Amino acid sequence: MLSIHHVLNAADRLRKVAACTPLLTSAALNEQLGRPVWVKAENQQVTGSFKFRGAYNALATLDREDRRRGVIGASSGNHATALARAAEHFEVPAVVVVPDDMPEVKRQAITDLGARIVSYDRRSGRRDALVHQLAHGKRLAIVPSANHEQVIAGAGTVGWEMLEEVPSLRSLLVPVGGGGLAAGTAVAACGHDPSLKVVGVEPAAANDTARSLSAGQLISIPPPVTIADGLGHSEPARIPFEINQRLLADVVTVPEEAIAAAMAYLFRHFRLVVEPSGAVAFAGLLQSLDRLPSGPVGVVVSGGNVDWGIYKTQLDHAMTRMETPAHAAAVLH
Amino acid sequence: MLSIHHVLNAADRLRKVAACTPLLTSAALNEQLGRPVWVKAENQQVTGSFKFRGAYNALATLDREDRRRGVIGASSGNHATALARAAEHFEVPAVVVVPDDMPEVKRQAITDLGARIVSYDRRSGRRDALVHQLAHGKRLAIVPSANHEQVIAGAGTVGWEMLEEVPSLRSLLVPVGGGGLAAGTAVAACGHDPSLKVVGVEPAAANDTARSLSAGQLISIPPPVTIADGLGHSEPARIPFEINQRLLADVVTVPEEAIAAAMAYLFRHFRLVVEPSGAVAFAGLLQSLDRLPSGPVGVVVSGGNVDWGIYKTQLDHAMTRMETPAHAAAVLH
Repeated sequence: MLSIHHVLNAADRLRKVAACTPLLTSAALNEQLGRPVWVKAENQQVTGSFKFRGAYNALATLDREDRRRGVIGASSGNHATALARAAEHFEVPAVVVVPDDMPEVKRQAITDLGARIVSYDRRSGRRDALVHQLAHGKRLAIVPSANHEQVIAGAGTVGWEMLEEVPSLRSLLVPVGGGGLAAGTAVAACGHDPSLKVVGVEPAAANDTARSLSAGQLISIPPPVTIADGLGHSEPARIPFEINQRLLADVVTVPEEAIAAAMAYLFRHFRLVVEPSGAVAFAGLLQSLDRLPSGPVGVVVSGGNVDWGIYKTQLDHAMTRMETPAHAAAVLH
Repeated sequence: MLSIHHVLNAADRLRKVAACTPLLTSAALNEQLGRPVWVKAENQQVTGSFKFRGAYNALATLDREDRRRGVIGASSGNHATALARAAEHFEVPAVVVVPDDMPEVKRQAITDLGARIVSYDRRSGRRDALVHQLAHGKRLAIVPSANHEQVIAGAGTVGWEMLEEVPSLRSLLVPVGGGGLAAGTAVAACGHDPSLKVVGVEPAAANDTARSLSAGQLISIPPPVTIADGLGHSEPARIPFEINQRLLADVVTVPEEAIAAAMAYLFRHFRLVVEPSGAVAFAGLLQSLDRLPSGPVGVVVSGGNVDWGIYKTQLDHAMTRMETPAHAAAVLH
């Protein structure tokens, strides 16, 4: 069973290769929200998302001989880039299986890192079969984006760094896709202080984890349509789900327009470029302020790989809406 | 005469109140540019620009009785916000004299901090007279945005932090408005290693320092029109100019479209929201790569206070141009 020791070992491995990303606060925003908010800027991480932590930790703990033959993983983009970068570090081949509608910025990053890209149709449900077929053919080690203990332990270092820097945090908000970041953060938080609340945040349009937690078992939903391309999972990953069942205080869901609003807040108050998936936890903050325990809250901004066209559309939406004070107030409550 | 000791004393004073901002690098960009580039993200500084360092250091070193009566400063916006924040810290009144076309995001920040705003017409040339008149009437201490030794020493801590973190830097690029950041950085660099090259970068449309350095004396130009609202000075400030005459290796100028391109690079490779003035040194990097000494180069990204409308226009310009490979190549050489 995954414990804080796995997270601490991952932190040791990552010390020299990953960024200890900044934990930012904004006096103006804190005043507006009535409490101290700390934002962990994982968009500043190597490859532009927290995913590098898990991918690197998984490769570092692979059997050397298995690793030498190469690795394969499926991903909406950020795990693929992270895997490509980790493989480059260990000088081993990487194959990544990605949806054919992946944002261009993510495709370019993977190509630049020299990994082989295999595309699939997001609606086909063929992803896992494709991964297994390719892995079998070339005897590649499969490194899933979430369903892997060392990937979860690597992701957990995000939460651990936040708590080391601001030990007074009373709650942590994390985006939920496959659930690996939430699970890793929950393990880290529990090791720090079991009374700390870790809250997962999902797009309402991709509420597989919220529904699965309610049902007490894995629930599969139709392929979600959400601007948060990194969180469009049909089903939670099994290993993190079992952890999240025990350790998450809550999962809240956010509508698409709250994601755009969160991107605008992060532009304005933190001067950070954040991709839609990366802004989902912040959207959750804006939507669930009164349900969080009092005291400082930490929010994981998980990535910043976004095409300009998508970014512009989201910010334009948000800024137009924010010009209406009634809407701005609505976003806050 | 200003020395490294002033910078080190300023660094001591700032330790608990200012951010030690991240120094970022991008593997993809380094490969593209053929050398390691380190970006100092002062858009992540308190009040969103490096100006807080100088304003705080000036207030901290003021005679207590003088400070108690309050402070006044003129600024295009960022120094005004910084002064307002420093005054809030010391619980003293602040008056700021700003151009009437200041971006809304800067006006809002100053208002939120409780400082009094007095506007003037940028083309009137009345700014300094207005400051002196207001200062005299209320016996306020004048804290200029650049023409002040402790403001320069505070700004110099930017360069000092960069060299402490990456001592192998062989050149530093800094934006030049009044010249305080360039002067402070040059003093810090000289204290670290006198062979290090500090290069100032100005908008071609606001080349008062380049012209003054060529002429060997202060030259006044008509009120500049540039998207870099923080660097639109008609004349260098005297105290930093005398330092820059001795210590700057070079001043390069950049056209307006290179500023937009730099903002786009910083969006794409560093996921940072940077205001036009804050991107000018990076524009200088893209334009003068072959004139810089070989080895790692440091670039100061000085601020990130930009209205969404301006940001969008700049990025749209840049992205459209970058779609033409010929232009992308041109931007790089």
